[in-house]
Amino acid sequence: MNTFQLADHPHQRLNILTGEWVLVSPHRTKRPWQGKVEQVNNQLLPHYDASCYLCPGNPRMGGDLNPDYKDPFAFTNDFGALMADTPAGQDIEDELLHARAVKGICRVICFSPRHDLTLPLLPQEAIGKVIDLWQEEYRRISADSSIKYIQIFENKGEIMGCSNPHPHCQIWAASDVPAELIKETTRQQAYYAANGKSLLQSYIALEQERQERIVCENEHFIAVVPYWATWPFETMIISKRHVTNILAFNEAEKNALADILKRLTTKYDNLFETSFPYSAGMHQAPVNDGEHPEWHWHMHFYPPLLRSASVKKFMVGYELLASPQRDITPEWAAAKLQSLPEVHYAAHLV
Amino acid sequence: MNTFQLADHPHQRLNILTGEWVLVSPHRTKRPWQGKVEQVNNQLLPHYDASCYLCPGNPRMGGDLNPDYKDPFAFTNDFGALMADTPAGQDIEDELLHARAVKGICRVICFSPRHDLTLPLLPQEAIGKVIDLWQEEYRRISADSSIKYIQIFENKGEIMGCSNPHPHCQIWAASDVPAELIKETTRQQAYYAANGKSLLQSYIALEQERQERIVCENEHFIAVVPYWATWPFETMIISKRHVTNILAFNEAEKNALADILKRLTTKYDNLFETSFPYSAGMHQAPVNDGEHPEWHWHMHFYPPLLRSASVKKFMVGYELLASPQRDITPEWAAAKLQSLPEVHYAAHLV
Ligand SMILES: O=P(O)(O)O[C@H]1O[C@H](CO)[C@@H](O)[C@H](O)[C@H]1O
Ligand SMILES: O=P(O)(O)O[C@H]1O[C@H](CO)[C@@H](O)[C@H](O)[C@H]1O
Repeated sequence: MNTFQLADHPHQRLNILTGEWVLVSPHRTKRPWQGKVEQVNNQLLPHYDASCYLCPGNPRMGGDLNPDYKDPFAFTNDFGALMADTPAGQDIEDELLHARAVKGICRVICFSPRHDLTLPLLPQEAIGKVIDLWQEEYRRISADSSIKYIQIFENKGEIMGCSNPHPHCQIWAASDVPAELIKETTRQQAYYAANGKSLLQSYIALEQERQERIVCENEHFIAVVPYWATWPFETMIISKRHVTNILAFNEAEKNALADILKRLTTKYDNLFETSFPYSAGMHQAPVNDGEHPEWHWHMHFYPPLLRSASVKKFMVGYELLASPQRDITPEWAAAKLQSLPEVHYAAHLV
Repeated sequence: MNTFQLADHPHQRLNILTGEWVLVSPHRTKRPWQGKVEQVNNQLLPHYDASCYLCPGNPRMGGDLNPDYKDPFAFTNDFGALMADTPAGQDIEDELLHARAVKGICRVICFSPRHDLTLPLLPQEAIGKVIDLWQEEYRRISADSSIKYIQIFENKGEIMGCSNPHPHCQIWAASDVPAELIKETTRQQAYYAANGKSLLQSYIALEQERQERIVCENEHFIAVVPYWATWPFETMIISKRHVTNILAFNEAEKNALADILKRLTTKYDNLFETSFPYSAGMHQAPVNDGEHPEWHWHMHFYPPLLRSASVKKFMVGYELLASPQRDITPEWAAAKLQSLPEVHYAAHLV
C-alpha cells in the first residue's frame, strides 16, 4: 500500500523560528537539469594579491591604505548601505506610503592577512581571533544607544554576490530591528512565555534524541540541518547554553565555536570538492531594546549549491511569489554532510 | 543645511501588501562593482529547435510527444514539485517538528509554438490567447475542491533558473495557501475591514495623483514601481477595477492586459537591450476558501538586473538574514522605465 512518507511525498514543514512554511518535494530529485551551469574556479589563490583592496598594505576602494595587519582587521565600509550621519528624518506616516529614516554602520572584517585562507583553511586558533574581534565589535557598536540590531554575516563566493575572494565578513548595524529578526523575536517570545525556556533549547534536545539531522557537535555547540531547512544544504549552529548574544561566550565556548565553524565549513568544502559558497550569519537579541530573555544565539548557513559545484538551487518564481521550495529532504542532506571527512580536501595545498 | 531626503539618505519603506520593510540606500549607487559579471547571450534563437522539449512535435522530458500546436499549449509538468496523487498524510503536529502533506498540480504553458518569441515579441493578439488559456486553466483547476491556491508564474532567463528558453510559464496549484499569499491576504483583509474598499484601489488612486512611480497605463491596468519595491526594477501591474481573480476579466480587460504586458516587457528589454530576465506572477484570491472580497488581482515582476545586462542585484547575506535592501530609489527606476520606448529594440529581427 502506498502510504504517506516524508522521504517520498510532497509536504510542508513549519519554520518554528519564523512561522513560515517550506514546500518539500523529495520525489523531484529525479528531474533532469538542463538549466544554468555556473562557472567553477577551483584555482588556488595567491597568499597576497597586489590588486586586492583587502590585503595588508594595499589601498582600499575609498582610497585609505590598509595597515600591515597580522590579526583579523576591521574597518568601516567605504560604501556602506547604512550611514552614521543620516540626517534625522521626518517619518512619512501615510497609511499607503510609509517610510522612515535609518541610521547605522557597516563594517568589514578581514579574517586574516592571507588572501587565500577561508574559514575551513584557517587554523582553529586563528578562527578564535576572529571570534574575539566579533565580540569586540559587538561590544563597541552596541554602546551606541541608537543601534537596535547588529547583523554579523559573511557572503562567500561569487555566486553569493561576494565581490572580493579575500576572506572577510561584514557587520551591518541599524537603528531598526530588521524584518527577519522581528519574526524570530515574536516566535521565541511566544514559546518562552508559554514554556519558561528557550525554543531552541527544546529543539536541540529533540534533535539529540532523534539523531537524524545532526551534522556535527562538540561540548558547547551543535550543527544541524533544521527540520524546516530551505536551502539544499542549509545548516544552523546553535549554542548548547541558552545565551542571548555573542558577548556571553566564555573562553571554552569561543574555542568550541572556532572548532565547530572549522569542522562544518570543511565538510561543506568537501561536499563537492570546491570552495563552498554560502551566506552565513549570526542571529542574536536586539540591542538597546530592553530585556530579551527569550533569545537564543544561533548562526544560519544558507548555501545555494544543489547537485554539484556548478548547479545551484534557484529561489525564483514560486519561491519569491508563493513559498520557498526544496527537493532533497533535510534528513538526506544531514546524513550526507555528516558522512563527510573533517579533513579539508585541499589542506595539503595551502 | 543637510536635511533628510528620500532620494539621498538611507531609509526603510513599508511593503503594505506584506507588512515587511525594505532598506533603501540611495547613496550606495556610487559603489564600484568588482563582483560577478554574468554571461550575456544576445544571440537570436531559431523559430524551431529540434532539441527543445517544448517545441511542437518534439518529445518531452517524460517521453510524451508534444502535439503540433499552433496556439498556447498546456500540459502537466513531468517533474512537478506537487502531485495530484500524494497519499493522504498523517499531519505531524509536534510543536517543534511540524509537517503536513500537500497535494497539488504543476502545469506548463507554452506561450507560442515559436521557440524565439517572448512576451514582448509576440503580437498583442497572441498574448490575448495566452490570457484566455490562463482563464481556462484557472477555471478547471479551481473546480478541484482540494486546491486552495493557484500560482501562475514565469521564470524568464537562465539567471532566473529557467531551464529552457522556449517562452513558457508555469502553474503550481496547492492544497494549502502559500506563505506570501497568507501575508497579502491578512493585510488586504485588515484594510478592507477598516475602509470598505480594497487596499490596492486606494493605492492606485494615490499613484495616479502623485505621478511619480507610474511606468505605463491603459484604460484597465496600471504598471507602477511600487513605493516598497525590493528588486531594482521591480514593477506591479494592477487592475483598475477591483476584481479578486483572473476569471473576472471581460474581453476589453483581457485586451488591455495583453497591451500592458507587451508594453511593460518591451520597456524591460529596451532597458539594457537584452532579453530581460525576471520572475513574474499573478497574485489573486485563494480558491475554495470562502469569500475573499478584500483581494485585488495584481501581478508582480521581480527582475534581478541592476547596472547592466551582466550585473545583477544579489539578494544574499543581509537580505536573507535581516531585511531586503536596494540601492536605486523606486522613483528613479520608474522614471527610467517610463522614459524608454515601447517599440522593441530587436522587433525588426524576428
Ligand atoms: O520548474 P523549473 O522551471 O524547471 O524550475 C525553476 O522554477 C522553480 C519554481 O520557481 C524553482 O523551484 C526551480 O529552482 C527553478 O529552476
Ligand atoms: O557589500 P558587498 O559585499 O559589496 O555586497 C554584497 O552583500 C550585500 C549584503 O548582503 C548585498 O546587498 C549586495 O547585493 C552584495 O553584492
